[in-house]
Amino acid sequence: MHIRIINPNTTAAFTRSLARDGAAVAAAGTFVDAVSPSSGTPSIESHVEEAIGALGVLEMIRDSVGVDGFVLACFGDTGLSAAREATGVPVVGMTEAAYFAAAMLAARFSVITLPPRTRIHAERVLRETGLAARCARVRAIDLPVLDMEADPAAALAALLAEARLALAEDDAEAIVLGCAGLTPLVGPMQDALGVPVIDGVTVAVKMAEGLVSLGLRTSKRGSFDTPPVKGLTGPFAGLFRGG
Amino acid sequence: MHIRIINPNTTAAFTRSLARDGAAVAAAGTFVDAVSPSSGTPSIESHVEEAIGALGVLEMIRDSVGVDGFVLACFGDTGLSAAREATGVPVVGMTEAAYFAAAMLAARFSVITLPPRTRIHAERVLRETGLAARCARVRAIDLPVLDMEADPAAALAALLAEARLALAEDDAEAIVLGCAGLTPLVGPMQDALGVPVIDGVTVAVKMAEGLVSLGLRTSKRGSFDTPPVKGLTGPFAGLFRGG
Amino acid sequence: MHIRIINPNTTAAFTRSLARDGAAVAAAGTFVDAVSPSSGTPSIESHVEEAIGALGVLEMIRDSVGVDGFVLACFGDTGLSAAREATGVPVVGMTEAAYFAAAMLAARFSVITLPPRTRIHAERVLRETGLAARCARVRAIDLPVLDMEADPAAALAALLAEARLALAEDDAEAIVLGCAGLTPLVGPMQDALGVPVIDGVTVAVKMAEGLVSLGLRTSKRGSFDTPPVKGLTGPFAGLFRGG
Amino acid sequence: MHIRIINPNTTAAFTRSLARDGAAVAAAGTFVDAVSPSSGTPSIESHVEEAIGALGVLEMIRDSVGVDGFVLACFGDTGLSAAREATGVPVVGMTEAAYFAAAMLAARFSVITLPPRTRIHAERVLRETGLAARCARVRAIDLPVLDMEADPAAALAALLAEARLALAEDDAEAIVLGCAGLTPLVGPMQDALGVPVIDGVTVAVKMAEGLVSLGLRTSKRGSFDTPPVKGLTGPFAGLFRGG
Amino acid sequence: MHIRIINPNTTAAFTRSLARDGAAVAAAGTFVDAVSPSSGTPSIESHVEEAIGALGVLEMIRDSVGVDGFVLACFGDTGLSAAREATGVPVVGMTEAAYFAAAMLAARFSVITLPPRTRIHAERVLRETGLAARCARVRAIDLPVLDMEADPAAALAALLAEARLALAEDDAEAIVLGCAGLTPLVGPMQDALGVPVIDGVTVAVKMAEGLVSLGLRTSKRGSFDTPPVKGLTGPFAGLFRGG
Amino acid sequence: MHIRIINPNTTAAFTRSLARDGAAVAAAGTFVDAVSPSSGTPSIESHVEEAIGALGVLEMIRDSVGVDGFVLACFGDTGLSAAREATGVPVVGMTEAAYFAAAMLAARFSVITLPPRTRIHAERVLRETGLAARCARVRAIDLPVLDMEADPAAALAALLAEARLALAEDDAEAIVLGCAGLTPLVGPMQDALGVPVIDGVTVAVKMAEGLVSLGLRTSKRGSFDTPPVKGLTGPFAGLFRGG
Repeated sequence: MHIRIINPNTTAAFTRSLARDGAAVAAAGTFVDAVSPSSGTPSIESHVEEAIGALGVLEMIRDSVGVDGFVLACFGDTGLSAAREATGVPVVGMTEAAYFAAAMLAARFSVITLPPRTRIHAERVLRETGLAARCARVRAIDLPVLDMEADPAAALAALLAEARLALAEDDAEAIVLGCAGLTPLVGPMQDALGVPVIDGVTVAVKMAEGLVSLGLRTSKRGSFDTPPVKGLTGPFAGLFRGG
Repeated sequence: MHIRIINPNTTAAFTRSLARDGAAVAAAGTFVDAVSPSSGTPSIESHVEEAIGALGVLEMIRDSVGVDGFVLACFGDTGLSAAREATGVPVVGMTEAAYFAAAMLAARFSVITLPPRTRIHAERVLRETGLAARCARVRAIDLPVLDMEADPAAALAALLAEARLALAEDDAEAIVLGCAGLTPLVGPMQDALGVPVIDGVTVAVKMAEGLVSLGLRTSKRGSFDTPPVKGLTGPFAGLFRGG
Repeated sequence: MHIRIINPNTTAAFTRSLARDGAAVAAAGTFVDAVSPSSGTPSIESHVEEAIGALGVLEMIRDSVGVDGFVLACFGDTGLSAAREATGVPVVGMTEAAYFAAAMLAARFSVITLPPRTRIHAERVLRETGLAARCARVRAIDLPVLDMEADPAAALAALLAEARLALAEDDAEAIVLGCAGLTPLVGPMQDALGVPVIDGVTVAVKMAEGLVSLGLRTSKRGSFDTPPVKGLTGPFAGLFRGG
Repeated sequence: MHIRIINPNTTAAFTRSLARDGAAVAAAGTFVDAVSPSSGTPSIESHVEEAIGALGVLEMIRDSVGVDGFVLACFGDTGLSAAREATGVPVVGMTEAAYFAAAMLAARFSVITLPPRTRIHAERVLRETGLAARCARVRAIDLPVLDMEADPAAALAALLAEARLALAEDDAEAIVLGCAGLTPLVGPMQDALGVPVIDGVTVAVKMAEGLVSLGLRTSKRGSFDTPPVKGLTGPFAGLFRGG
Repeated sequence: MHIRIINPNTTAAFTRSLARDGAAVAAAGTFVDAVSPSSGTPSIESHVEEAIGALGVLEMIRDSVGVDGFVLACFGDTGLSAAREATGVPVVGMTEAAYFAAAMLAARFSVITLPPRTRIHAERVLRETGLAARCARVRAIDLPVLDMEADPAAALAALLAEARLALAEDDAEAIVLGCAGLTPLVGPMQDALGVPVIDGVTVAVKMAEGLVSLGLRTSKRGSFDTPPVKGLTGPFAGLFRGG
Repeated sequence: MHIRIINPNTTAAFTRSLARDGAAVAAAGTFVDAVSPSSGTPSIESHVEEAIGALGVLEMIRDSVGVDGFVLACFGDTGLSAAREATGVPVVGMTEAAYFAAAMLAARFSVITLPPRTRIHAERVLRETGLAARCARVRAIDLPVLDMEADPAAALAALLAEARLALAEDDAEAIVLGCAGLTPLVGPMQDALGVPVIDGVTVAVKMAEGLVSLGLRTSKRGSFDTPPVKGLTGPFAGLFRGG
């Protein structure tokens, strides 16, 4: 089985981390890799960048052959519905996966995202998944995504400090990490906090693997049916070739 | 005052209709025009095409100088949050505007969109605007957007037939038209049905005009603050130049 | 076009301010005036006074000839549904208009009403418009409505102080003013705060003007159909004369 | 203990029926009577008439001495919040009481109101009580309130026919009667249908009796605190004299 | 009329208190007693104990003859739906009854439960009754249920302190006591706080009495129909004998 | 890794099927078995039987040693919260797992449960998971659970007929099977219908396997913390021995 993680941003180091972290949790017989678009934005921290990233997701789905399931590795799940139209194999967003896992492990969780302006993306997926009432609070640390990649120790310290506030002030029973690329921090954070710490990327890999192993595919009846092919032009020509 | 209607698809005839219909409702002193992206998709009937259209919206905002307010003329309001980040002037989506107007004229309304697979877009905006409980039903006619443009008489007949079902089966008190480009059908439909028929494009023009005339602008605090400028690449290079 | 602002309370100075502030934002060709009932309550700060004010609204609609659209200028929109039954022209409540405008300018807003006991009215309209999730908090300053009219400088200081709390504690991105008569404070508040400050009266005037200019009218099918005329007695005799 | 039923309309025969039906269910030691306003509307079937009826409610509370609890006997609970401000004793609306009782007897109920335009009132109270999800459907029979009073046999037949539809089509497990004055139909309907049939007036009498017997009173902290007394004028002068 | 209070825990002193407090509020002609299961758990402070308590509820319903209505006296209403299947007479949960009463007396209330881990039970019933939006906050004091029984003065002090926080921080207008057995504290708390303090047990007794006196019974159509009798085994053999 | 499926009913043939179907989807290195309680009810089709089944779940958790994750195999997830208190390893309900999977594969799904009276259980979990808005309709076939086991061909025919109604009438894009033991019908149904057909048992096995492989455990902070051990008596003595 081949599960492909799509990193909608263009930062190659990020993509390599995702491939490594995804492969580390794959079952025997599952091949996990990660790809990122040829052009776009180095990180996704705004609605503008979400719009750009969504195109990257579609480009990568178009260019994937023989993949059995996709994981979208951007908190906010940009492009998820479009991706479900563009392919028949399961597509799992890291955000929805993280929320579903949190809901199976705790009655009440807090999210820690970054930077603060992206809280609105986390909240949008809470509404879409119906789990807003289970989320005590969407918190954020004031750190750009790429700085977090550059200095994991600082990221860990900032996340731990914010998570401690979530336990103390929100009565959170679990913590959802609101960004891709944080898998290596899960262990240290769980050890320090004593509550489940949920990384959506690895959870999504396991959920995609599960759906694929059961022979489940994205519904092609109704909302996610393959769209009709039309005269796309410019950089979008060829972006989508139909079923 | 300059209000610009953004048509996120590439069909020029559509853009010309929007300009004509928008200008027809402008107050004295308001100049209304309509633009569409240089490349993209000829109509928006899927999540894939919404993703493409959102980029077109950003391209057109980048290329607009001296505009006082924007109207997004695509049912589903693709790219609306990104547009609000990309500019400080008001941006009004035709879908939200149509729903808000319907809520001020009737206790309960039905939406008629096209083709059927786009109902999910209409429903998404109902949830986002909080007006889902006021919508009796999202209906659809089985007609591609471009066919509707090509044969307005057939579109009128199909919309009237569906609207009559909405009155009879849904107890609808008003009808929201779920597509741009239908402004000329409002009069005939209201005459035939005897209930308010709401076209989001013209309503959005008036709402944008109103916000601008009051000196109101998009909040730049928090969620829609101008995003940081980063190294965008490929077709996206230069798409967003910051505040 | 004639837009009439209905002030449901009996304070004439208030009515004069509304007429002046409404006329100042009207488009060329729009005549705006304001009326208030011959008897009733000098301000509306309770459910009891809302009940009294609703009768005043109906009295003024009965006595209006040749009006193209009404604005209800009382935060809480008392009598709005009854007004929609009593006339075929559009009726816009200042509260719903303020919330709809806020939702088009910011992802998240706070309301500042007065005095504190009226928060329940602001919350009722949030539920009715479906925008409760977009409101971070309904705040209040501890000042009677008529004192605010008497001492605008004190009102401005109190509102600014509370608005600063809304920005700091609620992450509000815009402020909705929860009382009629505050239009002159919008400019100073926006200058001081740097976020949109929304006055429902002027927004409602523009929305009513927009609906009228599009030929839209209140639906007379179903919930807001003209009620049957019955034997009203006492002070209510003649209050409603049917369609 | 003295429980007073307030009939907000002016039809004396209606008031006599309410007194009789209320007294019939009172516990030993509870005195139940019914009053109606000196002027107003003969029945309440619209928002306009609700506004008139609310004033009647306040008039009757002002004129009541030594009453231990009130019941509002109009489906839609017009004036309920104002009544709670105007008195310290418990005030129970027949609509909320009916819904709460239905929720304790069945998982899912349908409401049958009359005439059809009053469904919006029933739905408003469903939202306010939070029980919308428990209501399968708000149905209506096409009969004016006063005709129902005049011809109870026809009313029974129409209600039974509609209730049978509710059982067959809505999977309703109980029926809520959406109008005051229907108490005598409960027995025949329960016999014919085999499910609970709930009359809000008698339920509200028992709930008010229960609250009073426990020494519970309307909260005077916050939303329902006695409003300040101001210069009410015209027919409203003296309507409210404060605590 | 015979109303029976079911205490789902095995602490006999608790059961005696419930019988005493329930009888004290009964109308003339109503006999109130209280029962508890022969085996189970001495108090209910967890989901595990709720599961055990639900079986106790069924055992006591099976063993009751000639009872006209039941009250479940455990905050969280464990076993309520099963009880409604197992009997045709009304069953009122103390939690739902407390919330319904609070909603009739105040616009906004806080709950004080104990110990903190049981907040989730209080919240579950808020969702089920639809009254979550009316509850400002579910608070808890850190005291085991049995300690509260053992030292009422300490319980009173802790509850009063927490209630004062609810008034100051939550703007609560009424307090709901989140545990059975606290009836004697209602008077002192109301005197000290000046707002309604609601004890679900006594409210439920009065609501059950009301439903019974009106001839209302649990619906046997659909969700609460008597279940089919099957081969129950072990300690469950004979637990349920059908209608 | 050892995943144990808990069948809360006592029908051994059912348990054997669950073990077989669960083992068939396990990854290499995962051992799946299934257990059922020594006494209880042969099937769970009512709230009464849910209460009995919940005790069986606790008995089986108490008696399990060395298990890494549990799956509850009863539609309605009886005993799920209690199970999460009673163990530190992940516990996944088949109902929540089915809904989460459906939400990742389709925008809108229908549930088919059996017999009709169990729809209320399916709806309760829809509310708890927040996915009610994604479910078009909860349907049911009129067949007892044990008959379905006895005659799979008849069950398949009935489920297919109902699923075809779900596609035609509900616009369902996927079907959730509302009962354990239906795994063998998934393939034939998917072939016949052309949409995803979701069996919660196998989905839950994969989700539990995923959570365990990631080192995630049930939160022991707050709501699901191990309850204090008390003096349980009778058949419940020893049911729970604490952490």
